Amino acid sequence: MLYKSTENYLFRLPEGDDLIEGLVNFAKQKEILTGVIFAIGAVKDVVLAYYDFEEKRYKEIELDGTYELVSAIGNISVKEDNIFVHLHTTVANSQGKIYGGHLMKAKVVVAEVLIEKMIGNPLYRKLQPNGLYLWDI
Amino acid sequence: MLYKSTENYLFRLPEGDDLIEGLVNFAKQKEILTGVIFAIGAVKDVVLAYYDFEEKRYKEIELDGTYELVSAIGNISVKEDNIFVHLHTTVANSQGKIYGGHLMKAKVVVAEVLIEKMIGNPLYRKLQPNGLYLWDI
Amino acid sequence: MLYKSTENYLFRLPEGDDLIEGLVNFAKQKEILTGVIFAIGAVKDVVLAYYDFEEKRYKEIELDGTYELVSAIGNISVKEDNIFVHLHTTVANSQGKIYGGHLMKAKVVVAEVLIEKMIGNPLYRKLQPNGLYLWDI
Repeated sequence: MLYKSTENYLFRLPEGDDLIEGLVNFAKQKEILTGVIFAIGAVKDVVLAYYDFEEKRYKEIELDGTYELVSAIGNISVKEDNIFVHLHTTVANSQGKIYGGHLMKAKVVVAEVLIEKMIGNPLYRKLQPNGLYLWDI
Repeated sequence: MLYKSTENYLFRLPEGDDLIEGLVNFAKQKEILTGVIFAIGAVKDVVLAYYDFEEKRYKEIELDGTYELVSAIGNISVKEDNIFVHLHTTVANSQGKIYGGHLMKAKVVVAEVLIEKMIGNPLYRKLQPNGLYLWDI
Repeated sequence: MLYKSTENYLFRLPEGDDLIEGLVNFAKQKEILTGVIFAIGAVKDVVLAYYDFEEKRYKEIELDGTYELVSAIGNISVKEDNIFVHLHTTVANSQGKIYGGHLMKAKVVVAEVLIEKMIGNPLYRKLQPNGLYLWDI
């Protein structure tokens, strides 16, 4: 729960990568088990999601075309022995109209990313009664 | 104005807590007088606000139901001898439609929070001519 | 690409400043060539933009009046020997309706800013085939 962050990474993900997969791969390569993520840029063919707590499943919202990636805030932790990226984003179209939610997938057009590695005990996600994998604290 | 941040907290607030109160209580417990806050998750029964600078008061926007907490960015400082949390949030419904503003209150469904404690001179809020309590710098 | 952030600045920009110019001037004064920016507050007479990758130019969205600055996430790097601020923002009106995109300009009403200076090799932007100046990495 208490962390030091002495390693910060500022980088771009290559065009065409899936944003979530690109972040997971970066975290694996740098051995980041726990961290925080911020990003801005542009993305296309976005799938956002809203978690329905009654039905215990995500409802997906598909957005075709290219959008500004206005905000991406998230974290890195461990879920079933894998590095897991949890990212919430807002995206805007050419009129400044905005959509938001839990990010399922998006193709990178431009992604300027900050990852702060958190030094301390790794955070683990465990399945909870509400159907979500949450930090077990 | 210049701070070091050697203590970072990653944690969840319990379901049912008021988001702002939960953050204030955490800051009190950890003796964080100055810090920054980022959070994602899900919230319900949200009250956002827009400050009307002509009338010098907040106008509230009530949102019933459950929303993705898409972004929460804010800070911790001292207002009239109390720890004060200032948080701006965007929330999204099941269609990805989004609302935003100054957060008055919201019930936590899931809240994954990062607080970076800022080590340095505490920041104090003082009442300004525009009716807001702002950092006195 | 790997940075330490031992200097963090929490401050307010004065009312009436252009938000981007105010951040650039602060970075110049503190000799911050590479950094990350987060801000909340209120702004007026906002110009957001959407980059059209086919036409290789920004399309501007003008928003008159005063808005909550709900999120501002961005970074500082070097573009053609100048300090360059890249900032994406969401802003909300009195109904909580929100607009977002790449920030061209906005007048500060209130701006509570965090800048984390990144200690390491400065990040440089170079013109890319898509018409944007991006980190050359």
